[in-house]
Amino acid sequence: TGMRVAVVGAGVSGLAAIKCCLDEGLEPICFEQSQDIGGLWRYTEHIEAGRPSLYPSVISNTSKEMSAFSDFPFPEHFPVFLPNALFLDYLRRYAEHFNLREHIRFGTTVVSIRKLPDSAITEQWSVVTETGGKQTSHICDAVMVCSGNFSEPSLPLQSFPGIERFRGQYFHSQQYKHPDVFQGKRVLVASRVAAKVTISTTRGAWLLSRVFEHGYPWDMILNTRFMSLIKTNLPAPLSWWLINYKVNQRFNHENYGLQPEKSWQVREPILNDDLPSYILTGRITIKPGVKEFKDNSVLFHNCPEEEPIDIVVFCTGYIVSFPFLEESMVRVENKHASLYKYVFPTHLQKPTLAVLGLIKPFGAIMPVAEMQARWVSRVFKGLCQLPPQSVMEKEVNEKKKNQVQWFGLTFDEVLKTEWLVYLDTLASFIGAKPSVLGLLFTDPWLALTIFFGPCSPYQFRLRGPGRWEGARQAILTQWDRVLKPMRTRVPAGSSSPFPSLLIVMAFLLLLAAVIFGFQ
Amino acid sequence: TGMRVAVVGAGVSGLAAIKCCLDEGLEPICFEQSQDIGGLWRYTEHIEAGRPSLYPSVISNTSKEMSAFSDFPFPEHFPVFLPNALFLDYLRRYAEHFNLREHIRFGTTVVSIRKLPDSAITEQWSVVTETGGKQTSHICDAVMVCSGNFSEPSLPLQSFPGIERFRGQYFHSQQYKHPDVFQGKRVLVASRVAAKVTISTTRGAWLLSRVFEHGYPWDMILNTRFMSLIKTNLPAPLSWWLINYKVNQRFNHENYGLQPEKSWQVREPILNDDLPSYILTGRITIKPGVKEFKDNSVLFHNCPEEEPIDIVVFCTGYIVSFPFLEESMVRVENKHASLYKYVFPTHLQKPTLAVLGLIKPFGAIMPVAEMQARWVSRVFKGLCQLPPQSVMEKEVNEKKKNQVQWFGLTFDEVLKTEWLVYLDTLASFIGAKPSVLGLLFTDPWLALTIFFGPCSPYQFRLRGPGRWEGARQAILTQWDRVLKPMRTRVPAGSSSPFPSLLIVMAFLLLLAAVIFGFQ
Repeated sequence: TGMRVAVVGAGVSGLAAIKCCLDEGLEPICFEQSQDIGGLWRYTEHIEAGRPSLYPSVISNTSKEMSAFSDFPFPEHFPVFLPNALFLDYLRRYAEHFNLREHIRFGTTVVSIRKLPDSAITEQWSVVTETGGKQTSHICDAVMVCSGNFSEPSLPLQSFPGIERFRGQYFHSQQYKHPDVFQGKRVLVASRVAAKVTISTTRGAWLLSRVFEHGYPWDMILNTRFMSLIKTNLPAPLSWWLINYKVNQRFNHENYGLQPEKSWQVREPILNDDLPSYILTGRITIKPGVKEFKDNSVLFHNCPEEEPIDIVVFCTGYIVSFPFLEESMVRVENKHASLYKYVFPTHLQKPTLAVLGLIKPFGAIMPVAEMQARWVSRVFKGLCQLPPQSVMEKEVNEKKKNQVQWFGLTFDEVLKTEWLVYLDTLASFIGAKPSVLGLLFTDPWLALTIFFGPCSPYQFRLRGPGRWEGARQAILTQWDRVLKPMRTRVPAGSSSPFPSLLIVMAFLLLLAAVIFGFQ
Repeated sequence: TGMRVAVVGAGVSGLAAIKCCLDEGLEPICFEQSQDIGGLWRYTEHIEAGRPSLYPSVISNTSKEMSAFSDFPFPEHFPVFLPNALFLDYLRRYAEHFNLREHIRFGTTVVSIRKLPDSAITEQWSVVTETGGKQTSHICDAVMVCSGNFSEPSLPLQSFPGIERFRGQYFHSQQYKHPDVFQGKRVLVASRVAAKVTISTTRGAWLLSRVFEHGYPWDMILNTRFMSLIKTNLPAPLSWWLINYKVNQRFNHENYGLQPEKSWQVREPILNDDLPSYILTGRITIKPGVKEFKDNSVLFHNCPEEEPIDIVVFCTGYIVSFPFLEESMVRVENKHASLYKYVFPTHLQKPTLAVLGLIKPFGAIMPVAEMQARWVSRVFKGLCQLPPQSVMEKEVNEKKKNQVQWFGLTFDEVLKTEWLVYLDTLASFIGAKPSVLGLLFTDPWLALTIFFGPCSPYQFRLRGPGRWEGARQAILTQWDRVLKPMRTRVPAGSSSPFPSLLIVMAFLLLLAAVIFGFQ
């Protein structure tokens, strides 16, 4: 009956893709190379080629309320930031609740995805998969690529002169599993038990803590509609000054050797709770970029002394690649893929192939991937139209330019392509963007919570296709689920969980916001 | 020639005592039960009865500039907060630089210290020591007790009903050495590798981080003359509100289950960098006080559910005891010793016995112990007089009262007996308290640094007995020594290390301070 949609991978994006296809009456068929769901979030002791690899102590960077799929909140007793095992647990609950498993072929690797030669009009795809050495071909009407970004490590050894003579051990961060290997060693980059840890960074970074102002999760404070409105409307220099002031309030990045090389470049912050304390107590030393490796030591730029090193961990990122696609399908240049809204190749005659989760917004990736899947499934179905090819290509090229230049006054543009704005854009395509102004008259408390509170994903289930009855309640109880696992010791006579000052502030700021004007 | 002074113990206080005796021309003879100096700060793998015990990852709570002996700054390349091995290294350098070792008898335990019966006028002491099973008696003119507070663990098992039936493992925190014992276990209190950690606290606590505002060490920001002036002059409720606001800025203690039981009780904060992040990520759970132990679990007050527990670590503190003194010498009631200024027993006819380091101020203990030693050696010598016995007893009794009651408006008194005020008080006894007002006219930059900057111990070597030529320079370069080990990556075009805004602020605040009036 419906369209047959091939979904590549059963991680966060793949599960969302299956679910959204089912919601729209499409027929998803998901190919997962491993024997289980969870992708990145499924820890395995053994490192498998072509699969992402976690170390056991990985904890989510984004809080549970901001990382949830929009119609499936995390259990209230789960901690605010999630150890990887609990995140996987959540994904399992999601798959079970929406019966996603029956649409997944496990142990099945996608070998190639090719447009059928006679499909100029119908645009069908031949998906060749391999299971236990046996290849099968599937004819599909559309494809969602959900294969992730963390499978192929990037190890640019040519950028590290002398590495061939280095007699210590070195490996890519993907290979890291347990701190035991560092015991008593002098390590360049990473870990607790090492005798001495040195982190080399050429460009520096702004550091944020999960524990943000007054101890609230960083993303529930920063990713609000109110903050987004301010950020996107402030003049660029003022916006820069504010960010500069805020990130340096926790610690002065210059004193800690972490100041970004060009401080007027607004780079995406890094989440880390421990580093400042580790630097201040001398357990970690920050160094500039590596100039040269010697037999048993490393030379850094602008540093005369050699640093004795036993082990090097290269945290040089991952390569984006789609080995099963023709190279022309998704062109990746300068780490930037030519995809309209980071999803659709611009040169297809009909939009029947989409890439999910190939974006690194400054916020939780899960609701973003889910929103992409909601949009994509409606585009596949023909209920949403994409702009003409020329318009899409112009936008993609402009984005590329900004990312490459990224200085002077153009950084303003980078700020504007932020998490919340991106979510809102896709939501508006499918008619699921919440109307704060409309709600202000019908449900003022909800409107205030939506505007000043965290932009939790439930906001995108209040209206439009895929509307969820529980959305309003989920929004109004989001802080309860945050505080539940933490307030395990409540002394007698404690006051309400809601900071009363914040409520007063909210009403005052509302006035200011009305003057600013809603978007 | 000089007086013969027995010093009990060669830890921080003992070393300071020897050094100050030598400065005053007294003849110290130090008895150290172990084979080396360092006391608490000397890590040993083996736990020895009657000796304090460190675990390998202990790092100083106070920064190197605030923890230094006043005429011996830490090496500039040392980290800002000191791993125990580096602190011991510093103590070794101190002992070597001032030739303290030759005055120490190692492997010598003090068995008893008794006043000689015929010493009503001369006040001499018989110090009996034991070395390798052989006892020796030494006649001394005075005694400095520097035996420390962390040798005898307090394990009040009777306060934990059912502990006798508990089938898991339990021990006092002093017994803790390596996290291995916790691997995979459910632990009540402490550590990183445990499967689940629960901290039980009846009274709660305010938590501070070593990494304070803008990343500066907490004690260099909080322990300034300017802050002390504000704290001791503000009306109590305003002072309480300020502290409440400040400590909750990092995280809301109520949300984290750490709110002190009676929030209007100003308790001494606890230093911890990691706990908030561990609570937010669910690695540590805070619970109320223990109600009862069961076979394999623990019941907490106001919690219906039992918590399965494998190991209990009792962090129930230490007992202050002086087994070598007659009980009447230093009376310890309700954890409060009857000592004038925490040093001199009030009932001796002549002040020839003093206890050092028996104080837990909210700041570094090292300069406090050293200041006590400077004062004590001048009292022994007769250059400083103590007030009449009745005056001393009155003061001691009032302090006790405040510590026991400690609520309503009386908490103001507790605030007033703070680190800086205590140091200044002893310094004024010996004429070493710096005169900010005087310096303002002769050396204004130094005066500003002393008043608004951290009250680093070098301030007490600017004048008076024991004046040190290097003190001025040490004060003016204190921030250089802090930043030296941290700014190991300086991008081109970085600005000056001094926050220029702070300088402007300093001048503005100076005016305000003049209006307040110097103490």
